[in-house]
Amino acid sequence: MNIDVCFSPVLYPFYKHNEEDTVVIVTDIFRATSTMCTAMHNGAACIIPVASMDEAETYKSQGLLVGAERNVAKCSFADFGNSPFEYTPERVAGKKIVLTTTNGTQAIEMAKNCHLLLVGAFSNLQVTVNHCLKQEKRVVVLCSGWNNRFNTEDTLFAGAVCDMLTKEGFCIASDAARTALMLWQEAQNDIFSFLSSSEHFARLQSHGLTADIEYCLTCNSTNELLFLDKKTGTIVKG
Amino acid sequence: MNIDVCFSPVLYPFYKHNEEDTVVIVTDIFRATSTMCTAMHNGAACIIPVASMDEAETYKSQGLLVGAERNVAKCSFADFGNSPFEYTPERVAGKKIVLTTTNGTQAIEMAKNCHLLLVGAFSNLQVTVNHCLKQEKRVVVLCSGWNNRFNTEDTLFAGAVCDMLTKEGFCIASDAARTALMLWQEAQNDIFSFLSSSEHFARLQSHGLTADIEYCLTCNSTNELLFLDKKTGTIVKG
Repeated sequence: MNIDVCFSPVLYPFYKHNEEDTVVIVTDIFRATSTMCTAMHNGAACIIPVASMDEAETYKSQGLLVGAERNVAKCSFADFGNSPFEYTPERVAGKKIVLTTTNGTQAIEMAKNCHLLLVGAFSNLQVTVNHCLKQEKRVVVLCSGWNNRFNTEDTLFAGAVCDMLTKEGFCIASDAARTALMLWQEAQNDIFSFLSSSEHFARLQSHGLTADIEYCLTCNSTNELLFLDKKTGTIVKG
Repeated sequence: MNIDVCFSPVLYPFYKHNEEDTVVIVTDIFRATSTMCTAMHNGAACIIPVASMDEAETYKSQGLLVGAERNVAKCSFADFGNSPFEYTPERVAGKKIVLTTTNGTQAIEMAKNCHLLLVGAFSNLQVTVNHCLKQEKRVVVLCSGWNNRFNTEDTLFAGAVCDMLTKEGFCIASDAARTALMLWQEAQNDIFSFLSSSEHFARLQSHGLTADIEYCLTCNSTNELLFLDKKTGTIVKG
């Protein structure tokens, strides 16, 4: 089996051969997929990922709880922004949550026709990798990036997946996967310091969100397996 | 001034802000831009880069010399493939050469509206960087990649440019540029070994093209400054 890495949703068409036999792990470390893990861990019934703001506003007018973020900031009409700390058990338990973010929800839309779409973050790394090992299929980590640009934090997560899967016999499929693995090997002993010169780290810090960064870089804190239920189009627990 | 790196022609729209104030260095190490440097060094009058095979065949029927490659192999109608060794002084001196390749000529087409488009390879690294220093503008290295996928050899060249420009005061503009620089710092003492596990290296080796690989990884062997002449749409010497 192969493990591949796609650095941006825009590149996904060039990585999606044999889509029906591929497990795609969509990641958006800062912060969409980390936040989804938290919300589900705290008891949300499901996440309804929507790519556009219009869809999110329509759901809001129907009475659903809505998380909506663009360029770090919470949208005015929304109940939540994109910080995992907002999705407390008190607010989300038993509730359906609609979520639209700058990058992550678009990546889910791109890859929704694959065999199995998993939602990955450092907080559910181990359980996500374990599930890939059971599938015995090609795996692609799809990095959400930032406005379709490469970012380091998603690539590090992809490298961690490459590291764990290659130790179980998977083969590195591309230069992108090899680069992700190399970055991870360089960074793994101190991800926080490694990322301190990265673009989105600076962007979050300038908004006073250092606690979000630390939380999103903590491994296996929730360990909820999350996948896209194709029948309902929602993210649910495995 | 900033130095940025774009890993694929498909990503270029997300890196091309202030295009009129940007110097773009298009690179396709294996082998289009390395071959262009050689052809010009060996006396070719100019290179006419064309993205499509149809255009190349039309030029051929008009009596021009044509280099055409797809997926490593020379196209049957063409005078040359994409190996720098084919472009000898005897064959190219004083001639206009039409060239179409799998990746490199498409990247030139994408970026042709920037302030100044340079053609870069390890063989003209120093002269290309020197010219960027004189321009005092934002620089983007546009990697041609492989069928729009990330590749390591173009990224290493981009990292070498980042290394040289940051030593002269340029700032790293993005996570992509920082990653390219880090890869270059890891690889620079033995680029050949570093690339030996990369995708296109294996592809070229399987076609018996190890000499091409070594040639394309040699720094400053031609030192011809090459740029796109916007009036004629051809690649000429500076």
